[in-house]
Amino acid sequence: MRNFNPESLSLYLVTDRGLAGERDMTDIVREAVAGGVTMVQLREKTCGTREFVELARGLKQFLLPLGIPLIINDRVDVALAIGADGVHIGQSDMPYDIARRLMGEDSIIGLSVECMDDVIGANALDVDYIGVSPVFSTPTKTDTACPFGLEGLHEAVRRSVHPVVGIGGINAGNAAEVAGCGADGIAVVSAIVAASSPFEAARELVRTMSL
Amino acid sequence: MRNFNPESLSLYLVTDRGLAGERDMTDIVREAVAGGVTMVQLREKTCGTREFVELARGLKQFLLPLGIPLIINDRVDVALAIGADGVHIGQSDMPYDIARRLMGEDSIIGLSVECMDDVIGANALDVDYIGVSPVFSTPTKTDTACPFGLEGLHEAVRRSVHPVVGIGGINAGNAAEVAGCGADGIAVVSAIVAASSPFEAARELVRTMSL
Repeated sequence: MRNFNPESLSLYLVTDRGLAGERDMTDIVREAVAGGVTMVQLREKTCGTREFVELARGLKQFLLPLGIPLIINDRVDVALAIGADGVHIGQSDMPYDIARRLMGEDSIIGLSVECMDDVIGANALDVDYIGVSPVFSTPTKTDTACPFGLEGLHEAVRRSVHPVVGIGGINAGNAAEVAGCGADGIAVVSAIVAASSPFEAARELVRTMSL
Repeated sequence: MRNFNPESLSLYLVTDRGLAGERDMTDIVREAVAGGVTMVQLREKTCGTREFVELARGLKQFLLPLGIPLIINDRVDVALAIGADGVHIGQSDMPYDIARRLMGEDSIIGLSVECMDDVIGANALDVDYIGVSPVFSTPTKTDTACPFGLEGLHEAVRRSVHPVVGIGGINAGNAAEVAGCGADGIAVVSAIVAASSPFEAARELVRTMSL
């Protein structure tokens, strides 16, 4: 059976190649994990499948011994190829039931929700967590619906039967407020990936949330 | 066991959304099949996974009763999702051994080869066919190596242990010459997808090759 501890959602890093610039994504993830990241989602939208698989395999090698779940964004094939812990799907990715059938009962599947209807819809699914997206407006994702805001996130937490992670525009300046909404964790992209020190950025987020 | 008849390669349609313009891809494939296409590869590089899955499912519904194999380009997850007949992978897609493991022994797996070393390399793999790419230079694919030409295709046919299909710049004007190189078939993109009548275009290609 599934072995997913929602505490893993606490500080959830989502990668973004565009924000990494010339830096190696594996190095960024390594630093971020040393700084306190508790779960990692590899998101690749532009590279070839072979490169995606190789990158994912490399991440798995050092995350597995640490007990940090590795989640693949959208690509069930890449997740199956390397035996990732799970996939994260959005509303226009693989339908949930197919993703579950292909990934198996033991895998973690997270689902992005972009409005309150999605939150309610997800209640009928056996997903392992929902990603409320975006909490704040963000330049990283420009194709999403209007932000939930802290109030919307709070309502999503109240109405969802699943663990909830907030994503979108979260940084050290607002992480405490987000955590205060009752979410199981925060997911960050630029606050860590674009930071000059992903290690310090992760540590600062951990510190802020535990205040 | 695998049930692949290399005669299916005879006139192999590879889709391209960019060349379809405003027209519906399913309509184009339907017309092309009526005109004589013997195998279809759905190639999607820009749309979301859900749309890809829905398009593939729609194509499967009408190709299956006709006994025309449906092959998915690159995306093993999409192929598994709809139970496609197989996948076609390139040199920077999913590595062959992983694709075979995920797809199973019964599925068709085709591999693009871009130079004679790739042809030789493919001889060691249990692929079902190789796609010699490109035969001629083509505006559809700009990231490939220099064209094989008719002589290179002939050599590839001679050196490969697998069925061979030529792809790249093939149209009614040169299809007969390509067929004359001993390949099991031709794969076409723009010659059918961009044609004002995909039905007539396919019919013309069949006619040309049987002369």
